[in-house]
Amino acid sequence: MPTLKQQALDYHQFPKPGKLSVESSKPCATQHELSLAYSPGVAEPVRAIGADPELAYRYTNKGNLVAVITDGTAILGLGNLGPLAAKPVMEGKGVLFKRFANIDVFDIEVNAPSVQAFIDTVVNIAPTFGGINLEDIAAPHCFEIEKALSERLDIPVFHDDQHGTAVIICAGLINALHVQGKKLADARIVCLGAGAAGNASLRLLLAMGADKSRLLVVDKVGVLHTGMIDLPPHHAFFAADTDARTLADAMQGADAFIGVSAANLVTPAMIKSMADKPVVFALANPDPEIAPHDVHAARDDAIIATGRSDYPNQVNNILGFPFIFRGALDARAKRITQKMLIAAVHALMDLAREPVPADVLAIYNLTELAFGRDYILPKPFDARLIERIPPAVMKAAKE
Amino acid sequence: MPTLKQQALDYHQFPKPGKLSVESSKPCATQHELSLAYSPGVAEPVRAIGADPELAYRYTNKGNLVAVITDGTAILGLGNLGPLAAKPVMEGKGVLFKRFANIDVFDIEVNAPSVQAFIDTVVNIAPTFGGINLEDIAAPHCFEIEKALSERLDIPVFHDDQHGTAVIICAGLINALHVQGKKLADARIVCLGAGAAGNASLRLLLAMGADKSRLLVVDKVGVLHTGMIDLPPHHAFFAADTDARTLADAMQGADAFIGVSAANLVTPAMIKSMADKPVVFALANPDPEIAPHDVHAARDDAIIATGRSDYPNQVNNILGFPFIFRGALDARAKRITQKMLIAAVHALMDLAREPVPADVLAIYNLTELAFGRDYILPKPFDARLIERIPPAVMKAAKE
Repeated sequence: MPTLKQQALDYHQFPKPGKLSVESSKPCATQHELSLAYSPGVAEPVRAIGADPELAYRYTNKGNLVAVITDGTAILGLGNLGPLAAKPVMEGKGVLFKRFANIDVFDIEVNAPSVQAFIDTVVNIAPTFGGINLEDIAAPHCFEIEKALSERLDIPVFHDDQHGTAVIICAGLINALHVQGKKLADARIVCLGAGAAGNASLRLLLAMGADKSRLLVVDKVGVLHTGMIDLPPHHAFFAADTDARTLADAMQGADAFIGVSAANLVTPAMIKSMADKPVVFALANPDPEIAPHDVHAARDDAIIATGRSDYPNQVNNILGFPFIFRGALDARAKRITQKMLIAAVHALMDLAREPVPADVLAIYNLTELAFGRDYILPKPFDARLIERIPPAVMKAAKE
Repeated sequence: MPTLKQQALDYHQFPKPGKLSVESSKPCATQHELSLAYSPGVAEPVRAIGADPELAYRYTNKGNLVAVITDGTAILGLGNLGPLAAKPVMEGKGVLFKRFANIDVFDIEVNAPSVQAFIDTVVNIAPTFGGINLEDIAAPHCFEIEKALSERLDIPVFHDDQHGTAVIICAGLINALHVQGKKLADARIVCLGAGAAGNASLRLLLAMGADKSRLLVVDKVGVLHTGMIDLPPHHAFFAADTDARTLADAMQGADAFIGVSAANLVTPAMIKSMADKPVVFALANPDPEIAPHDVHAARDDAIIATGRSDYPNQVNNILGFPFIFRGALDARAKRITQKMLIAAVHALMDLAREPVPADVLAIYNLTELAFGRDYILPKPFDARLIERIPPAVMKAAKE
C-alpha cells in the first residue's frame, strides 16, 4: 500500500495530469451538429446576445460557470507558494463544486504585479463567468480585493476563505453552544487568528447576535486591545477594552474558543481555565491548535470541533460554498449578501438538528447519529444539503 | 422541422444553456477520494510544484489546457459585438478542440479598456494554461497583441484567425495550383482583404516560395501600391510597384484569387479576366465573394474553394488549430514557429494527395474521392489528421 502522500501524487498524475477536463455538453459527432455548435449556426446566439446581453444566460454556460481565482499567496496552510503551485487546490475546488452542486468551474491562477493589477485582471475576464470565487488570497489584500470586485462587478463575488468558512463556523458554534445550554448573545468568545477566516467569522457571529463586549481576538501580537496603536483596520475593529494580554489571559472563563491559526498554540491549562461546558473549535489544518484527546484529557464537558475528517464535528467548507453559489446562481443574484450567508447558516443549523436518514448513516458506516456533542453540523455527503441550502439562499437573495 | 436558425438557438439553450461543461477527470465519490483531490492530499502536489514549477505539467491539467481568448471585436463575419456576444463562438471552439484533439479549453471573454490592458490581462492569467489561442480579435490590434504575448509568455500563443487560416489556405492553394499544373513561385496572386487572415496567409505563402513581385493585395481603398502614403505597417509591407488600382485591374491575368473579405465583391467579368486554369478561393463567410455557380458559369477551368461545407473544397480552420496545438502541447513548445506552421501545411498537402480510406468515404456518404479539382484538402472528419499533423508539428518544434 503506497503512503498517503504517494497516493495523492499518483491521483494527480495518472492516468493523465490534473483533475479537471472540459467536455462538450452538446452532441458534436456529425457535420450537422458541428454546424450548429460552430459556424454557421453559432452566429444566431451571437447575434441574439449582441442585441440583448442577458441572453448570454440562455445560450452560453455563463450562468453555471464560476471562476475559482487565486494569486497563490495563502495556499491552504502552506503559505505563499505562488499562483502555479495553487493550481491543484483550485482544480480540487472545481471537483468539489461539480460533485456537490453541479457547478462548472474554470480555475484561474493569476500572477499579477500588484493588488490593483489583480483586481483589474479579474474585472477584465469577468464577462466569462456567472460568479467569482476568490481562494487562498492572503489577508489583508483579500479584503481590498473582495471589496473592489464586489463594487465593480454585477455578478456574485465570494471569498470562500472568509465567508464560506464563516458560515460553517457560525452554524457549528451556535449549535454547539445550544447543545451546551448556552446562547450566542451571552457567550464569551475568544478567537485566535485575525486573518481572513477569523475576521469574517467574527463579523458574521456579531451580525447573528454575538456580543462584541464579550469578544476577545488574539493575533500573533497578543490580545487585540484598545491600547494598541497603528492597528490595521481589520484588527482595529476588534480591539477590546480589556486587561487581557495573552491567549492564556483571554481563555480564562471563555465559553467558546475559535482557533483559525496554527498547530499546538493552545495548552491543556488554557482549556482547564475556560468556563463550564465550553466549546473548542481548533480549526488549524492539518494539525489543530490542540488535539482533541488533549482537550478530553483536560476536561470532559467540552464540545470539540476540528478541520479534520478523522474526528467528529468537522468544520468543512464543503458544507457551504457549493450550495451558497448554487443558490446565488439560480437566483441570478448580483452579489452574495450577509442576509444570504445568514440564511445558509440557519439552513445548516436546522439540518443538523433533524434526524439523520438511513442512507446518510450508511455512507458513513454508522448506525446512529443524533444532534448533540458529536454531531453539530451535517455530514458533507448528506444529500439534503443541496435540497435545503440553495433554496434558503435563493429566498434570501430575492428578499 | 424548425429552421436552421431555430435549431441553432435550441441547440445552445436545451437541455441546459451553453456547450461546455467541466468534469472531474478523477474519481471523487468517496471521502477518501475527496481527501486526495482536496485537503489534505492536495498539499502534496502543491508542495511539489512550489519546489519545481515544471511539475505543474505532471500534477495539473495545465499541459492540456488552452485558453481561447477574445475581446469580441471581430466575431466571425459579424464585426465588433463585444466580448459577451463572442462567448458562443469561443465555447464552440472549445467543442472543436475537444472533439478533434482531446484538448481542454477554457473560453475567456475579455472586456479590457485598452489593448495594453488586454495584453496585461492575458499575461496575468497565463500561469493557468499550457497555450493561448487568440480568437476573433480585429486587425490591426491582433498583430500587436500576438507579438506582445509571444514575447512575454513562455507558452505557445496562436492567433487562429491569422495563422490557422494561413495554414489551410496555403495547403489548399498550393495543392490547387498543383492540380492546375502551376507552381507557387510562378503564380500571380491577388488577395482581397488585408486583415488578420490575408496578412498571415500571404506571409506564409511568401515563406513557402511565393514571389512577392507577383502579388497584389486589394483592400477597401483599392490595390495597395507604393504610391500610397501613410499606410499602416501591415499594409505597407504589401504595397506593390504597379499601375493596377482596382480589384478588376488586379484580377486581369491572375493565376490565383484569395478572398478574405466580404460577400459578392467579385464579378463574373473579373473571373473571366483571370489567366488560364485559375484558382479562386472565395472565403468570405457565410456568403463568398462570388458564388461557385457564378464562377462555373463564367468559365469551366477554375478550381473553386469556399469557407462553406455545402460546396467542395471547404477551407476550414478545423483542419489546423486542434492538431497544431496538439503537436505544440505534446512537444512542450514555448512558441508556435513558422517552421511548425509550414510542417502543418506540408502534412495537410500530403494527406490530401493520398488515397482516401473507406471509413472516411463512409462518413461523407461518398463512393470515391481523389486528389483533384474537387478535393484539394482533407475532410475534417478524416481520422488521419490527428495521426499526421501533430507529429509533423512536434518534429518541427524540436528541430
